Amino acid sequence: MPAAALPAQDGPRGADLVPITRLADLAAADRARILRRAQGTFADVLPIVEGVLDAVAARGDAALRELTAQFDGAALTDLRVSEEEFAAARAGADPVLLDALAHAARNITAFHSKQVPPEDVVAPQAGVRLWRVWRPITRVGLYIPGGKAAYPSSVLMNVIPARIAGCREIVLCTPPNRQGQVSPTILVAADLLGVRQVFKLGGSQAIAAMAYGTESVPRVAKLFGAGNRWVTAAKLVAASRGLAAIDLPAGPTELLLIADETAPPAFLAADMIAQAEHAEDSASVLLTTSEPLAHAVRDELTRQLGALPTRAMVVDSLQRYGLIALVASLAEAIAFANEYAPEHLGIMTRDPAAVLDGIVNAGSIFLGPWSAQPAGDYAAGTNHVLPTGGFGAMYGPLSVESFGRKLQVQELTRAGLAGLRSTVGTLATSEGLPGHRAAVEARFESPSEGSTSEEAGYVE
Amino acid sequence: MPAAALPAQDGPRGADLVPITRLADLAAADRARILRRAQGTFADVLPIVEGVLDAVAARGDAALRELTAQFDGAALTDLRVSEEEFAAARAGADPVLLDALAHAARNITAFHSKQVPPEDVVAPQAGVRLWRVWRPITRVGLYIPGGKAAYPSSVLMNVIPARIAGCREIVLCTPPNRQGQVSPTILVAADLLGVRQVFKLGGSQAIAAMAYGTESVPRVAKLFGAGNRWVTAAKLVAASRGLAAIDLPAGPTELLLIADETAPPAFLAADMIAQAEHAEDSASVLLTTSEPLAHAVRDELTRQLGALPTRAMVVDSLQRYGLIALVASLAEAIAFANEYAPEHLGIMTRDPAAVLDGIVNAGSIFLGPWSAQPAGDYAAGTNHVLPTGGFGAMYGPLSVESFGRKLQVQELTRAGLAGLRSTVGTLATSEGLPGHRAAVEARFESPSEGSTSEEAGYVE
Repeated sequence: MPAAALPAQDGPRGADLVPITRLADLAAADRARILRRAQGTFADVLPIVEGVLDAVAARGDAALRELTAQFDGAALTDLRVSEEEFAAARAGADPVLLDALAHAARNITAFHSKQVPPEDVVAPQAGVRLWRVWRPITRVGLYIPGGKAAYPSSVLMNVIPARIAGCREIVLCTPPNRQGQVSPTILVAADLLGVRQVFKLGGSQAIAAMAYGTESVPRVAKLFGAGNRWVTAAKLVAASRGLAAIDLPAGPTELLLIADETAPPAFLAADMIAQAEHAEDSASVLLTTSEPLAHAVRDELTRQLGALPTRAMVVDSLQRYGLIALVASLAEAIAFANEYAPEHLGIMTRDPAAVLDGIVNAGSIFLGPWSAQPAGDYAAGTNHVLPTGGFGAMYGPLSVESFGRKLQVQELTRAGLAGLRSTVGTLATSEGLPGHRAAVEARFESPSEGSTSEEAGYVE
Repeated sequence: MPAAALPAQDGPRGADLVPITRLADLAAADRARILRRAQGTFADVLPIVEGVLDAVAARGDAALRELTAQFDGAALTDLRVSEEEFAAARAGADPVLLDALAHAARNITAFHSKQVPPEDVVAPQAGVRLWRVWRPITRVGLYIPGGKAAYPSSVLMNVIPARIAGCREIVLCTPPNRQGQVSPTILVAADLLGVRQVFKLGGSQAIAAMAYGTESVPRVAKLFGAGNRWVTAAKLVAASRGLAAIDLPAGPTELLLIADETAPPAFLAADMIAQAEHAEDSASVLLTTSEPLAHAVRDELTRQLGALPTRAMVVDSLQRYGLIALVASLAEAIAFANEYAPEHLGIMTRDPAAVLDGIVNAGSIFLGPWSAQPAGDYAAGTNHVLPTGGFGAMYGPLSVESFGRKLQVQELTRAGLAGLRSTVGTLATSEGLPGHRAAVEARFESPSEGSTSEEAGYVE
């Protein structure tokens, strides 16, 4: 398909930047590449990561210092960030950035505060009361990358739901530079939310430290936070060893857009660029019912890329995992979107709510032209920790629920148990568990029944 | 500590059956054994399980037939249960059992129906609307053991929340006997709930079939159901390969009881026996503030065990992982319970609600003497799929939420985005993502802005 005529400009454009094709005509191999995107396996890093976990389990802090010297080039004495380092980060912080973090934190708090509804008591029959009680996970661990990908916004997205959940202790690990210092904006964000247990640890050794616990680093029950492949592999190994639960498998970030002829091409192109600038393995896909729109978006991509500092990265990822595909109907777009299960889904159509009704697999959904995806990444209030690589078909976004669970409670009276007596007996007998039947029967035969139950106030 | 005088009787009793000791005096090794119970690692079975997954991935149904011949001794032509087999199971079913299953199903439905609350829209600032939409996982897979541990109640506990969640397709695997037949009570329970895709597959090959999909067995997005070590290991490998999500790691079943002097010894003993009869690796622990009660419970254990058909199993598991421990206070019992994180927690004290307030780690909690644990296993309505082996510190009981997730939705107006504009710009710039700032700015600079937004109805 020929590219529209464009003004002369450096670098790839038109079909060299991103192809336009009918979705139905997409070659099987290309379709598979687009659906798989950069989702990889961890087979190559697993042996290294398992060795790191074993070393930290066996030798604790000593292993952490060696691994940090080896992988980060930093010689640490204290693994934990000191009060002086926190104070220096605060003193050096840009007030405009602090205001922005506070603004984002307010909106994130507003959205997440609604996420733990009180549970009603259910009484399925007389004398049987059932309910659930919310309990936060006591101690949780959070990994925050450093270097280029040191995102204070990710501190907010993890810590705020943990705080709302009621987690008592939050342990945060983030890698040091060669001078043994961690990102001051990470420290400022942690400080803003009262997180004081910050350790200078990166990669799989950080996960190992929180999964096993060491002399310095407390052991946690659940691990949160996205990282590179080593970090993700270490989380998977920790979970499969039964050491800790994990939030969700995270991979390269991605956006799928569904648009009809009412969508502004400049907005679509802008969102695709924002997504593609993250890394060379990010994915940006546009599905549209309008061929003129498809070409207008490609023209806009070329135009907007002109002066962007991250232009090279955008070009690279668009060429790998980018696509503009024409669909015969919105139904065709919805079906592909559900197969893709995008982390971010933008819907710019005449009736976005109608498209939303058909979506079953996605992370975070942006309705209409003004719902710019970076607003959700930073400040609208929704969480930006989302399932990638097709995991949107089975996992949901990070939420307050991720930081705790609802324990079941049942309270029966004598009459309540009597009403279940024969059913429990029948089922227990059928399953070959006579002691289960006996445990109910004993309560109606026992001489201690009357007095004790009255004393304890359990008689109706 | 001397055992109370008991009538002469065969088999172990008193201290030979279960020790009574002060919790504070428990030797470190015994304390570790009690806390660890039968929770094992999967290191020994992982290579076998990985081989099974690889074989099924490579050769589909042919591999399933070979593995079923090898492990189950059954030569299968059709892997799927036929309509005739369903009809035969229905025809042969005991009407009393059918009534009991229907009764349990009603209560389970009543409790689980409350578990997906509608989400309110949150508007953290003008023009910014945020909410979550519930979406079931489209296709889920369920493993149900066969043989001695063929529990139709587990079919109810998994399928009912899946149905309430709205899962469109439920695939069920259960192992065949040497004649190629599966448990008729499993079939009857599946039939009762409209599950028709039942496959004659057991062990890790069943998990492999549902994780990869074969010619006969559909691929599922999430795997449910407890099984033996091979099944659990296969689920963990499937999850770590990114093939499917899993419910929760399941292991041997367990009960911890907290009692004071108001508790009826016969009830406590009956619950301990019911728990211990499951398997030789089940655990039953009683913590009590009353020394006379401790001895009375041990006497009751001996008395109630007298004629029980599962006596040998109970004795075996009590001797391995059973304990009656004296505590100085209910606070000491609560602290140990939270460290143990029991699957089932029974509270028989003067004020059970006060003890419940202190509990943070447990699966399902039974308040007061009439809340017999088998009632929760079968028919009260709560779920019996619960975290074991200490996983109660991080995972919750199976619930409707396990079968879907809430996708995030955001809808911004022009004014809404304008209100976030500078905050998003500041944060994006600070994180080195200029394209994110540009995606917002483009919307306020673009010539296509006015007309399209009005057409689409997004202007406030």
